[in-house]
Amino acid sequence: MTTGIEPPPSGSSSAESLLGAHLAEQAGRFLRALPEVDLGTLRRVDGALHGFGGLLDPTWGETLRGDLAALIVTLGQERGYTRRLARLLTAVDSLTCTDVAVPLPRAADAEQPGAGPNVGGLLAHHPGAPKARAMLERQLTLARSRSHTAALQELGSARFHSLADRMTLLVSDLPLRAPEEIHPAEQLLGHAARTFEALELTVDRLPLDRAAVPYNGDALHRIPMRVAADPAGQAAHDDAAWTRVGAAVRYARYALEVCGPLLGGRAAEPLAGLAALAAQLERQQEAVDAAEAAALAARTPRITPATAYVLGVVHADQRLEVEAARHAFSCSWPDFLSSGWLTDPWLARST
Amino acid sequence: MTTGIEPPPSGSSSAESLLGAHLAEQAGRFLRALPEVDLGTLRRVDGALHGFGGLLDPTWGETLRGDLAALIVTLGQERGYTRRLARLLTAVDSLTCTDVAVPLPRAADAEQPGAGPNVGGLLAHHPGAPKARAMLERQLTLARSRSHTAALQELGSARFHSLADRMTLLVSDLPLRAPEEIHPAEQLLGHAARTFEALELTVDRLPLDRAAVPYNGDALHRIPMRVAADPAGQAAHDDAAWTRVGAAVRYARYALEVCGPLLGGRAAEPLAGLAALAAQLERQQEAVDAAEAAALAARTPRITPATAYVLGVVHADQRLEVEAARHAFSCSWPDFLSSGWLTDPWLARST
Repeated sequence: MTTGIEPPPSGSSSAESLLGAHLAEQAGRFLRALPEVDLGTLRRVDGALHGFGGLLDPTWGETLRGDLAALIVTLGQERGYTRRLARLLTAVDSLTCTDVAVPLPRAADAEQPGAGPNVGGLLAHHPGAPKARAMLERQLTLARSRSHTAALQELGSARFHSLADRMTLLVSDLPLRAPEEIHPAEQLLGHAARTFEALELTVDRLPLDRAAVPYNGDALHRIPMRVAADPAGQAAHDDAAWTRVGAAVRYARYALEVCGPLLGGRAAEPLAGLAALAAQLERQQEAVDAAEAAALAARTPRITPATAYVLGVVHADQRLEVEAARHAFSCSWPDFLSSGWLTDPWLARST
Repeated sequence: MTTGIEPPPSGSSSAESLLGAHLAEQAGRFLRALPEVDLGTLRRVDGALHGFGGLLDPTWGETLRGDLAALIVTLGQERGYTRRLARLLTAVDSLTCTDVAVPLPRAADAEQPGAGPNVGGLLAHHPGAPKARAMLERQLTLARSRSHTAALQELGSARFHSLADRMTLLVSDLPLRAPEEIHPAEQLLGHAARTFEALELTVDRLPLDRAAVPYNGDALHRIPMRVAADPAGQAAHDDAAWTRVGAAVRYARYALEVCGPLLGGRAAEPLAGLAALAAQLERQQEAVDAAEAAALAARTPRITPATAYVLGVVHADQRLEVEAARHAFSCSWPDFLSSGWLTDPWLARST
């Protein structure tokens, strides 16, 4: 297909050599950081295996991806609990900080019936707030400690040593699907384009029109019965659909990074756009998980009703954060789409 | 002041006769509706006394306003509890309706650590939901019954009979401040213009710039310390400031209704605008009161933690409604302002 645009300078590299160089760079970073584990490099290796698996030895690739996934989950949990705890304590504190401690007086408005003194939506002086804070801190610190132990076990496991060995090999040797074949470097763009197509398909399944309306209530409310028959309406409550978009954005981003040497400066703008979308989806996911942690804490036996009440407020507050992050994504996505990167000829020309 | 616009046809009526005709009409409606009490007519009489008190016998006017206010509060409470109960039960039911009863499966996304099965923000099958519903229903029904008893006592009181007598007199006689003076009808416009000025001043004290940003978190979160020194920031949490704007909108609306015969069809547009603003502020006020009722219910002794948790979610949900209604008002107000009605020459020319 002739696009009328000259292909970018790609030198004499092949697809295999560019992919190999990228993976070698990530593997080198991973090894130099040890005994610390750089989750970013592991995610990039996984992303390269996902996006360009067609070029690679399938058994080797799938085995490595499985081990990477287990390690990312185990090590990610500890970091996830740390972030979740910070987010929930910030929520409790912002709901209860006492810089305006005195309940606001109700306006002397004879026309407006009211149930009593107006304390707004604030939890200042609520007896449950310190206990809810202590409970969240205790439970999430305990969960983090358990994750830490699991992470240490993982780092001492045969699986981890085997993975480190494979990363060492990756610095010099890339197991190819057909070692006798050499593909032009531009073929990487076609593979990357498919991760962009997958991203667009995944986003198409989100109810973005609903999310674009502020205060749509989706995060807390169920859809009324009459709307529930509409698949888009149901999807509004499908947190999993949003999680999938988060993964699709990462795959598109990491695939584009692999193509960086082919695209030069032209990759900067879409990479920045994908990073911004990823940040919104990460905020969305963290709020989903934090809301769930507050709900779990409220199921602790023998807590006081005051504690449970505050946890209910915090849960709803985090679900509101979920809704706000989805709204922000629904505003950013059309801009990203209209930038043309998803259908850019440099990505599409070799599909 | 010459505005270059011809004054509207006002016939040969005086300010006193137009005001008297309006009050006679409202009093007649009130008396015909008995033994039902039409709160709308009482609010309009109060609004006319507020907006055009300069023309009226001050002692008579203030005494009547005091009695009207007491009656409006007493009778309004019963209706307020009825609406509040409906709003809270709708909230609990929309949070818990079971048309999608099965918890949504978590996406098999190895890169995203999660704490367990993903149940979203929904309270489906939450053990506290039926109890929270029953508690809200019991408490608000009891409060409504007490208000009903108080309303019946009020309707049998000497104060109510005295008020009904004064409404009967109002059909034919308007106690004027200076019975020997007759003012041109257009002077009513100057009085109405002052209620519009008061409305603008009251709205100026709201943090509308903040409310215009969706998901600003004002309704639930306190302002961080560094912002709290800013009076506009503090006002964000001042529910009373919003209640005052609700009263100011009503006063402007009722004053404009009195001027209807002077303005003819020209009054329709600003009246519709004020009615829309009033509806947003009423939604805001009802959500404020409903959130408070949920918080009060959570302080009931011996409730279960599960019930308290659901009440916390409902409280936060209603505060989110508060934030949404304020956001809607912040979007409508600039349109109303730019329509020019607040500074319309027909309102301002005789000030």
